[in-house]
Amino acid sequence: MAKHRLFTSESVTEGHPDKICDQISDAILDEILTHDPDARVACETCASTGLVHIMGEITTNCYVDFQKTVREVVADIGYTRAKFGFDADTCAVISNIDGQSPDIALGTNDEVGGAGDQGMMFGYACDETPELMPMPISLAHKLAKKLTEVRKSGELDYLRPDGKSQVTVEYVDGKPVRVDAVVISSQHSDAVSMEQLRADVMEKVIKATIPAELLDENTKYYINPTGRFVVGGPQGDTGLTGRKIIVDTYGGYARHGGGAFSGKDPSKVDRSAAYATRWVAKNIVAAGLAKQCEVQVAYAIGVAKPVSIMVDTFGTGVVADEKIEQAVEKVFDLTPAAIIRDLDLRKPIYRKLAAYGHMGREDLGVKWENTDRVEELKAAVAAL
Amino acid sequence: MAKHRLFTSESVTEGHPDKICDQISDAILDEILTHDPDARVACETCASTGLVHIMGEITTNCYVDFQKTVREVVADIGYTRAKFGFDADTCAVISNIDGQSPDIALGTNDEVGGAGDQGMMFGYACDETPELMPMPISLAHKLAKKLTEVRKSGELDYLRPDGKSQVTVEYVDGKPVRVDAVVISSQHSDAVSMEQLRADVMEKVIKATIPAELLDENTKYYINPTGRFVVGGPQGDTGLTGRKIIVDTYGGYARHGGGAFSGKDPSKVDRSAAYATRWVAKNIVAAGLAKQCEVQVAYAIGVAKPVSIMVDTFGTGVVADEKIEQAVEKVFDLTPAAIIRDLDLRKPIYRKLAAYGHMGREDLGVKWENTDRVEELKAAVAAL
Ligand SMILES: C[S@@+](CC[C@H](N)C(=O)[O-])C[C@H]1O[C@@H](n2cnc3c(N)ncnc32)[C@H](O)[C@@H]1O
Ligand SMILES: C[S@@+](CC[C@H](N)C(=O)[O-])C[C@H]1O[C@@H](n2cnc3c(N)ncnc32)[C@H](O)[C@@H]1O
Repeated sequence: MAKHRLFTSESVTEGHPDKICDQISDAILDEILTHDPDARVACETCASTGLVHIMGEITTNCYVDFQKTVREVVADIGYTRAKFGFDADTCAVISNIDGQSPDIALGTNDEVGGAGDQGMMFGYACDETPELMPMPISLAHKLAKKLTEVRKSGELDYLRPDGKSQVTVEYVDGKPVRVDAVVISSQHSDAVSMEQLRADVMEKVIKATIPAELLDENTKYYINPTGRFVVGGPQGDTGLTGRKIIVDTYGGYARHGGGAFSGKDPSKVDRSAAYATRWVAKNIVAAGLAKQCEVQVAYAIGVAKPVSIMVDTFGTGVVADEKIEQAVEKVFDLTPAAIIRDLDLRKPIYRKLAAYGHMGREDLGVKWENTDRVEELKAAVAAL
Repeated sequence: MAKHRLFTSESVTEGHPDKICDQISDAILDEILTHDPDARVACETCASTGLVHIMGEITTNCYVDFQKTVREVVADIGYTRAKFGFDADTCAVISNIDGQSPDIALGTNDEVGGAGDQGMMFGYACDETPELMPMPISLAHKLAKKLTEVRKSGELDYLRPDGKSQVTVEYVDGKPVRVDAVVISSQHSDAVSMEQLRADVMEKVIKATIPAELLDENTKYYINPTGRFVVGGPQGDTGLTGRKIIVDTYGGYARHGGGAFSGKDPSKVDRSAAYATRWVAKNIVAAGLAKQCEVQVAYAIGVAKPVSIMVDTFGTGVVADEKIEQAVEKVFDLTPAAIIRDLDLRKPIYRKLAAYGHMGREDLGVKWENTDRVEELKAAVAAL
C-alpha cells in the first residue's frame, strides 16, 4: 500500500518584523566587513512599535553609522509611511553595543582559530528540487518572494510589506506529488476589499508561483484567514533577530541545532558550520551517493576541530553512512578557519541572505551551494 | 555490522543571557495570568550590558509592575552584583509594550477560537529515558541544572550564573550506549584557578550527574575550553527571548517548527500545540504503539482546525503510521480551545519551564507529560 504523508513549511516576506531585524543585523555586519574583514560582530536587533533597538558585541576598527544603515534597510523594505505601521525616517533608533568579551576573544583569535561558541549545526540536501532543497520550504519561499514582487512592482499596489506563506505538500512513498494546502497572509491597505485581495493573491501570487500540476480540486486555500491585516510590521508584532531559524534553513524538514545566523561574523560556527554542512550534504546528494542526506557537526568553544561529525542518509545511501562519513572527513576540513577560507565568508554577502532563506540560494552565487567537491567525494568513497 | 552514530545536544543554565530573557518573559506572563487568565500576551525581552528591554503585545485588564518582576527574576538567578556582570537592583529596565493588534484579535477571540498564528509544531517522544526523552538533551539539562545547584548551594561558591553544557552520545544500532564527549563552560570568579575549576566541575558536576557506566577512558572532556570565563551574562553576550528553542525542546534530536515559547499565552499555537504534540507523541510511545514517534501539526491563523497532522514512527510502529494518525485524530482534539482546556494552560505555570526544558518535565506536574490517553489510544487503534 502506498504510504501517504503531509509535510508543512512556512516562509515570511522581507517586511515581517523578525525578518526586518535579521536584515538590519546583517546589513550592519556587511557594512563592517566591507571596511574590516577581520572584525568580530554579533549584532542583535529588535523592532517594536516605532522603535528599532540594536545591541550586541562588536570589535572593529571602522566607524559605522548605525542610524543610517537601519533607516536604509527599513526604507528598502518599504516601511516609508507611518500608516504602513512603521516609518524609516521617523522611527526611533537606539543602540547598546559593547565590544566582544576579551575572554571569548582569547579562544577565537586567529592564532588559536577556535570555534566562537559551542553548539551543534545541521546541513541537509535532497533531490526534491533542482537546487536540492525540500519542496515545502522551496515553494513557501517562492510565494513569499512573489508577494513582495507584486507589491514592489505596483501590480498589487494595495499590499503592504508584512506577509507570511505556508505550504502543505503531500508525499506518496517519499515523493512530493501535490500541494494539499496553501496559507497566505499579507498586510494590506484599508481601502481594498477582502474579495479583491483574495482573488488577486490567488491569481497573481499562488497560481503564478506554484506549478499547476501540483494544485488540484482538493487543494485548500486560506488567504488572509483572519479577514483583516491592516496593522502590520513591528506595530502588530515585535520582531527580533534570529527568530526565523527554521524559515532560514529547511522549513523544519531537517533538524536544527538552534543557532541563528544574522548579525554573526563567520568566526561564529552557528553560521559558518551551518553553511559548511549544507555544502557537504549537497555535494553528497549531487555526487549520487544518496537521495537525501543530513550532516551534523558539534563544536566546543575555543577548540578548532569538531567534537563530532555525523552523516545520515536515511537508508538512501549507495554505501554505508559510516563510509560517507569517512569520505567527508577526508574531503572537507570543518575547522572554522578552513570553512571561512573555503566558503570565502569574510565578505559582505549577508544582507541578501537575510530574507527568503540562507540555503538553496543559487541565485546569490554563495559558495556553499557549489557542487565542486563531487568528484573528490566519489573518489574518496571509491578508495575506501 | 553494528551501526555506530554520534549525536550531540546542548543546554544552558538559568543564568545564560537568552534564558534570563525567557524567564523574564514567562514571569511577566505568569504575573498576568494570575490576575487575568484570559489575557492576550506576547512578551519579548532582550538583555544587554546593564539593560533589560521588554517589548511585545499585551491586552489585559490587570496592572503589572514590570520593573519589580524583572528585578526579582534577575536576582533569583543570582545576578546581584555588578562584578557578576549584571546587577538586579541597578540595571536599567525599559519597556515598549503595545496592545494586541485588533486585526489579530478578530480571528482569535473566544467565539472564533482560531489559532493565534500560522505555523508548524512538532512533538516527539522515544524510549531512551524513563521520561521518554532523547538521552543527549536529557543529560545536557541535568548537567546545566547541576551546575546551578552547586553554585547556589555554595558548594562551588566561585561559580557565577552563566553556563553551558553539551553532551555527545554514541548510539549503536539506534541505542544510546556511551558518552563520547562532554563540554561544560561556567562563568567563574577571577579568584579561582583553572586547575581547581576543572577538577571540581569534573567531580562535582560531570561525575555526579552522568551515570558512571556511560563514561569510559575514551570519553573526551572539555571544561571551560577558552581558559577564562569571568565576563558573563548579558555583559558577555546579548540575550533575547526565544533564542534557545532547541534547548527548550528535544536538543535537535527531533525536528522543530521554529516557533518560540516564552512570553506567549496559550492562544499562540507555537506554544500550546508544541505541548499538545509532545503529549500525543508521549502517549503513543507509552502505549507501546512505537519506540519513537514524531507528530507534526500545522495551523492557519484564525482557523481552529489544524491544516495538517502527521505521525512518523520511523519504522518502529506496531501498525502503519496512517493508522496511528487516525487514532490520534479520534482521541485528541487539536483545536486551540481544546488544547487549552485539556492541558489546563490558562494558569501561571510558565516561568519554571523557562529554564532546563519544556519537555520531559515530570518534576513540574505539567499535563502534557501525563500518559493519560494510553488506553483510549490502544482502543482506537484496535478498533480500526
Ligand atoms: C500573528 S503575529 C504573532 C502574534 C502576535 N505577537 C500577537 O500578540 O497577537 C505573527 C505574524 O503574523 C502576521 N500577522 C500580523 N497581523 C496579522 C493579521 N491580522 N492576519 C494575519 N496575519 C497577521 C505578521 O506577519 C506577524 O508578524
Ligand atoms: C560565546 S557567546 C556567543 C558569542 C558572543 N556573542 C560574541 O560576540 O563573542 C555564547 C555563550 O557562551 C558563554 N560564554 C561567554 N563567555 C564565555 C567564555 N569566555 N568561555 C566560554 N563560554 C563563554 C555564555 O553562556 C554565552 O551566552
